[in-house]
Amino acid sequence: MAKILLKNAEVLGLDGVVTPADIAVDGAVIYQVGKISAEWQADKVIDCTNKLAIPGFINTHTHAAMTLFRSYADDMVLMDWLQNKIWPAEGNLEAEDVYWGTSLAIAEMIKSGTTTFSDMYFHMPQVAKAVAESGIRAVLARGMAGIAPNGEQALIESEDFFHQYHNSADGRITVMLGPHAPYTCPPEYLKRVVALAQRLGAEIHIHLSETMGEVDECKKKYGKSPIELMKDLGVLECGVLAAHCVHVSNADIALMKEANVRIAHNPGSNMKLASGIAPISAMLEAGLCVGLGTDGAASNNNLDMLEELRLAAMLHKVQSLDPLLIPAKTAVSMATVNGAQALGLSKVTGVIAPGYKADITLFNMHAPHWYPRHDRISLLAYSAGAGDVHTVMVDGKILLDNKCLTTIDEEQLMYEANKRGMRLVK
Amino acid sequence: MAKILLKNAEVLGLDGVVTPADIAVDGAVIYQVGKISAEWQADKVIDCTNKLAIPGFINTHTHAAMTLFRSYADDMVLMDWLQNKIWPAEGNLEAEDVYWGTSLAIAEMIKSGTTTFSDMYFHMPQVAKAVAESGIRAVLARGMAGIAPNGEQALIESEDFFHQYHNSADGRITVMLGPHAPYTCPPEYLKRVVALAQRLGAEIHIHLSETMGEVDECKKKYGKSPIELMKDLGVLECGVLAAHCVHVSNADIALMKEANVRIAHNPGSNMKLASGIAPISAMLEAGLCVGLGTDGAASNNNLDMLEELRLAAMLHKVQSLDPLLIPAKTAVSMATVNGAQALGLSKVTGVIAPGYKADITLFNMHAPHWYPRHDRISLLAYSAGAGDVHTVMVDGKILLDNKCLTTIDEEQLMYEANKRGMRLVK
Repeated sequence: MAKILLKNAEVLGLDGVVTPADIAVDGAVIYQVGKISAEWQADKVIDCTNKLAIPGFINTHTHAAMTLFRSYADDMVLMDWLQNKIWPAEGNLEAEDVYWGTSLAIAEMIKSGTTTFSDMYFHMPQVAKAVAESGIRAVLARGMAGIAPNGEQALIESEDFFHQYHNSADGRITVMLGPHAPYTCPPEYLKRVVALAQRLGAEIHIHLSETMGEVDECKKKYGKSPIELMKDLGVLECGVLAAHCVHVSNADIALMKEANVRIAHNPGSNMKLASGIAPISAMLEAGLCVGLGTDGAASNNNLDMLEELRLAAMLHKVQSLDPLLIPAKTAVSMATVNGAQALGLSKVTGVIAPGYKADITLFNMHAPHWYPRHDRISLLAYSAGAGDVHTVMVDGKILLDNKCLTTIDEEQLMYEANKRGMRLVK
Repeated sequence: MAKILLKNAEVLGLDGVVTPADIAVDGAVIYQVGKISAEWQADKVIDCTNKLAIPGFINTHTHAAMTLFRSYADDMVLMDWLQNKIWPAEGNLEAEDVYWGTSLAIAEMIKSGTTTFSDMYFHMPQVAKAVAESGIRAVLARGMAGIAPNGEQALIESEDFFHQYHNSADGRITVMLGPHAPYTCPPEYLKRVVALAQRLGAEIHIHLSETMGEVDECKKKYGKSPIELMKDLGVLECGVLAAHCVHVSNADIALMKEANVRIAHNPGSNMKLASGIAPISAMLEAGLCVGLGTDGAASNNNLDMLEELRLAAMLHKVQSLDPLLIPAKTAVSMATVNGAQALGLSKVTGVIAPGYKADITLFNMHAPHWYPRHDRISLLAYSAGAGDVHTVMVDGKILLDNKCLTTIDEEQLMYEANKRGMRLVK
């Protein structure tokens, strides 16, 4: 395993402070940060002058292969969009399409500084294949809809997928169970998911309270909110990553805190689909762990985590008319260390410190919009762009080298993704 | 004057439709779009395969030199920010600082695809110098605050500046008068500005109804809203570019429509400073012309118009819970053709068509986040990044060539801007 020295970087620490430091990477792991012992000899030295080193972004919620539907259907009402555009197009998806769509997503994520993503989709072995080949880190869940004709099959596939892929690809892949949502998974089905989760020791990734209509319907049908329903069904006890949580009450937040539910906040998707604004400040105040996600590229329409962290910092300020909410440092933490915690990877990634996996993104700060350098965290949160991502490392392996992908044939990828995307919507 | 052929581009037309076309540029002007006559001979041919050609972005409201305060003071309450951070730092500004701060802004704007900006600041001859040297197009206004010790001086400077610089730099610079806002310019002072505007035939660029506090105070003091006050003082008759207009009533909107006031909407600044959400849909429905602006980099914190157009498309959807509001095409128009109209340049720029000035931005679409190509306008509005800007032309002159600035020494600029930025906040 190679020993790599990132020399003369400016390194974002857990305290949110940026300090000049070197980073010694030994194999997959960060060995030392700061002044590196003289006896430590690197195989490769990377000059990081004018580079900001941060823990790679953690995208806590996406449907990667939906990149294939990027720009296919926008500015539409949710159910019109799903029923008349997305679902028919998804009906045409073949296993290999999911491989190429996921690879397209991974290429975009690496190029914009993301080192870990959490996915919920189908044909998941294809997703795992794309993850394994590309070198990125991922938490994968086979999406399950109890009301769908393949609901039973999805349970079986989920279990198989867990057995085959949990902790695979040198540990870069972990697996969760992915019941889609309370409105697509009836109580009896969710109980079976809970039983499976308990048997496997798997956690659960689920959409909760994304739209007002969904919450209203749940209350009408079951006399309780989706969060309350999940608690009563035992879902929350499994360890839950809950996507969206836009329409949650204070009582819901208290229940989530009690069960240590982690939230994947998707401000871009929530804005574009007009779902609403999640009460993130209240969640943070309650001590909940909130990470950030892009959601699928069909509803965003990119996988740029810097955009999400900026939206998180700006949206809640204007909604509450309080410019002190979600300061730059908090938004950056949500996109990195909190995201790792949300995915159950808090001991693995999300922090640049000895013992953590070497999942590192270097931003090139030598561009007009990074000057003057009054505050590097503010510059990252409010001024930087995905185009500034220069080098990305996952598990100690360089996946992006001076803006070039090292593990993905980008030309072939764009060709295949375009061809398949066009075929799917015919 | 050179004849340049942009060959094999995909060109955004006024109808919002992208079609394959060549663009013939003759000197400063677009000569032909589509299939170019065989007898037309170019001096230089640029291959635009995989490039999207759009009219350069029009930034309708900024304070360019405030780039020097970028990242100096964020996540603060407006008056705390102004009184304890920005105003003291601005007190240290010397004329040459404004030149370098403006040049930094121009470099950033060109690199992110902006070809025209509208500025309100001071030491305006320095701003004009930076504009003239860089080749960008600008509408400049000397900011005037009647309550400031230099209020009288500002009126004199405004008149001098108009005489010296209106229609200068081959017509790339036009000049407006810039009374800062109703709360810094008392009625008697505004009347003098109106008289000056009428004498010069100059239009007015002013901040109106940015915060709720300002509107409340105006009503308490004068018994009317800032818009009503402006109407009564004759300001609206001069031709007005009104920045912000966040807290305006339906009656205000009707008055603005009557006087054909053009609005500079700054969603990023309004979000970050927690000013509020301007009723842009209502304005558009009323038939008002709404352009987009970044505001100064101290409150944004960049000058990226693509970010503003995306925020415009997404913010109003989530506020109204209506995903049909401000579709991609509308947002792109706001950032281009409507912006030109807002600045009184509708016959000059903002459109790629014969007879208009050749102010063109080329986006490189050959990157993962631009695939598949279901809809190029959606891709531009929701997926693209400033890092995709490849070539920028203003007045037929190439200012950005494959991401490299041709008229600005970027290294010297970053050095000077950083040095001066640090000195100002000492």
